[in-house]
Amino acid sequence: MAVSPLAPAGFPSLPVIGGVRFASAQAGVRYKGRVDVMLAEIAEGSTIAGVFTTSATRSAPVLDCQEKIGRDVAGRAAFLVNSGNSNAFTGRAGEESVSAVCGAVADATGIPVDRIFTSSTGVIGERLPHDRILAKVEELNDSLSEDGIEGAARAIMTTDTFPKGATATVDIDGRPVRIAGIAKGSGMIAPDMATMLVYIFTDAAIGRDALQALLKAQTDKTFNCITVDSDTSTSDTLLMAATGASGVNVTDSVAFTDALGNVMLDLAHQVVRDGEGATKFVEVRVSGAASDDDAHKVALAIANSPLVKTAVAGEDPNWGRIVMAVGKSGAQADRDLLTIRFGDILVAEKGWVSPDYTEEAGAGYMKQQELVIAVDLGLAGGMSTVWTCDLTHRYIEINADYRS
Amino acid sequence: MAVSPLAPAGFPSLPVIGGVRFASAQAGVRYKGRVDVMLAEIAEGSTIAGVFTTSATRSAPVLDCQEKIGRDVAGRAAFLVNSGNSNAFTGRAGEESVSAVCGAVADATGIPVDRIFTSSTGVIGERLPHDRILAKVEELNDSLSEDGIEGAARAIMTTDTFPKGATATVDIDGRPVRIAGIAKGSGMIAPDMATMLVYIFTDAAIGRDALQALLKAQTDKTFNCITVDSDTSTSDTLLMAATGASGVNVTDSVAFTDALGNVMLDLAHQVVRDGEGATKFVEVRVSGAASDDDAHKVALAIANSPLVKTAVAGEDPNWGRIVMAVGKSGAQADRDLLTIRFGDILVAEKGWVSPDYTEEAGAGYMKQQELVIAVDLGLAGGMSTVWTCDLTHRYIEINADYRS
Repeated sequence: MAVSPLAPAGFPSLPVIGGVRFASAQAGVRYKGRVDVMLAEIAEGSTIAGVFTTSATRSAPVLDCQEKIGRDVAGRAAFLVNSGNSNAFTGRAGEESVSAVCGAVADATGIPVDRIFTSSTGVIGERLPHDRILAKVEELNDSLSEDGIEGAARAIMTTDTFPKGATATVDIDGRPVRIAGIAKGSGMIAPDMATMLVYIFTDAAIGRDALQALLKAQTDKTFNCITVDSDTSTSDTLLMAATGASGVNVTDSVAFTDALGNVMLDLAHQVVRDGEGATKFVEVRVSGAASDDDAHKVALAIANSPLVKTAVAGEDPNWGRIVMAVGKSGAQADRDLLTIRFGDILVAEKGWVSPDYTEEAGAGYMKQQELVIAVDLGLAGGMSTVWTCDLTHRYIEINADYRS
Repeated sequence: MAVSPLAPAGFPSLPVIGGVRFASAQAGVRYKGRVDVMLAEIAEGSTIAGVFTTSATRSAPVLDCQEKIGRDVAGRAAFLVNSGNSNAFTGRAGEESVSAVCGAVADATGIPVDRIFTSSTGVIGERLPHDRILAKVEELNDSLSEDGIEGAARAIMTTDTFPKGATATVDIDGRPVRIAGIAKGSGMIAPDMATMLVYIFTDAAIGRDALQALLKAQTDKTFNCITVDSDTSTSDTLLMAATGASGVNVTDSVAFTDALGNVMLDLAHQVVRDGEGATKFVEVRVSGAASDDDAHKVALAIANSPLVKTAVAGEDPNWGRIVMAVGKSGAQADRDLLTIRFGDILVAEKGWVSPDYTEEAGAGYMKQQELVIAVDLGLAGGMSTVWTCDLTHRYIEINADYRS
């Protein structure tokens, strides 16, 4: 499959995170001739946090992770992830597969089962052929290495056209603290929570509750502000491990919070840039709303509207559809106080098209690959920004053919 | 544009409704060489009711109708509708156009302005060239006839590929009471309220408040249960006139209520059958929900899911995406109590695929043009049925090119 035209130039150089080792392998769960399973081994003393899909039909691995995430267990930890099969809606067999995989990882690594977190992504409703994964666990354990993260990023891909990684290093009290993350996801992306799968590692020291609170807060500003097709996966999982190897405690550190937020936003943007069939990256900025919640409603109504998304695909500066989306959002709005901008171009104000706006200017702007649609509601100070992509023929092709 | 493959065989034969006359004309508002404006003249003593879009950015004609609908005015009444331009988000100019059109109709017909209801459908945000309509008002008034309703149905079309009409005659106390309705709408169709434009006429006698309550209740069961693309128009309007010419009072008549509901459901289904790019007509039946509201949430989540709609387009029996849609709906659900059927085929139960289900059976079923997707949540007695269509390349073509 051709790489998305919105992809970054290449996979970034991610730093080694002290206390974490990675391995990937070809288990042949569904795909042939590519890595499809990855293992991350996390040092003793690390804290683990997680945020998961809000779906009422969560997959067996998600339910298992959620049960384990709050437990007060020490020792090493592990993340094991496969692509090709999501082990979702697989009844009791799904739980058996999770147990089998966790058991095998425990046997091979000596890590307690309570500290083994698994994720699965891919087709829903088919039994996970977990024997294929079990057959690779020893190989994975034997090939763990500090610099195996890119292989891990590749192993978790499904319809993704490029592997996704992001990093930040922040100096705290003169010492470097490193963050590195990987993600996958291209369709079925919408709040909450819009990640598909994300794994973030840091050598910072931070307590479990503080890490969990931080991760949740940053998720709301990043992964919960992206949408590809308004659909929400049964498998969305974000796991984070803090090993403490840097020796720097980052509890309440603004610098660390900002750095983590940047890594998460970078990954979130990459997920949108790999949205199925995407040819345009669209930032929807809403201001002047009665509240931040109202602004978010309006931003999502615009970003999820099939009519807005097809207009963007057709490079049509169809601001009428934006007015429509504002109107249907459920947020407080006054038609005659609306202001709409495409980038710096003032399109509409005071309930109508701006006298200086020309269709030529709008159409010229829409030809760009990166677009900003800004809407001011003129009511109060509520703000929200959401990122999305266009809706193209390719999305239909991918989803009318691919069994996900 | 080719007629939708889901269209009925032809426009139905609609009966004359005593007290109503129709005319249509070519005003050239936007389209050339076809009728694009229609006038309905309604006899003195008729009651008028209306239901309108819930959009916060309603068009000038909708706001004007809403203001007039509650007024206690007698005399004849008129509906004037144009296609090609929706007069939405046109600021003060929009109100001026409504006044100009109403004034001209009043001058030509002698009907009081308070009893003149206008609708406009088509492009948003461009000034309505109302002079073109004004130039045709005398011609419209001079050509009013009892059997002009099919021309009216054609005049209100935009991206519609066929005119929509429905009728019912019900005997009450041995006397016939007639209902005839017309509608337009193909994209930007979603609750509330999913009509685009609908005009219904009956020779029943019924008071204004009773008619309004009846119309609202039936709308909830019909037009608010269809969705094409989850987008809600700024112009959606449903107007109904009861002339009383039959001499039969239908207040609290179950037979009349049922007949009206059938006419509205017929029109609602026709709107879905003309959904932009539609090749499949899909009935989504949800039962066993904790409440009717929950059932409706689940039904809409399935019907609006781009992943479900593209799977239907691809004739892929992808029940995993239905599980996903149930999960994201926000309704109470238990994965392991879900039952999913395609028509009579039991697909999934007890949290997993049914042992008797075969992919061949599912794939064979999906080749049909008319599909029933049934989901039982296994919780309580809440039920809802929603109708939708698939999401195809043609939808993208129409909406990436057409300025609506």
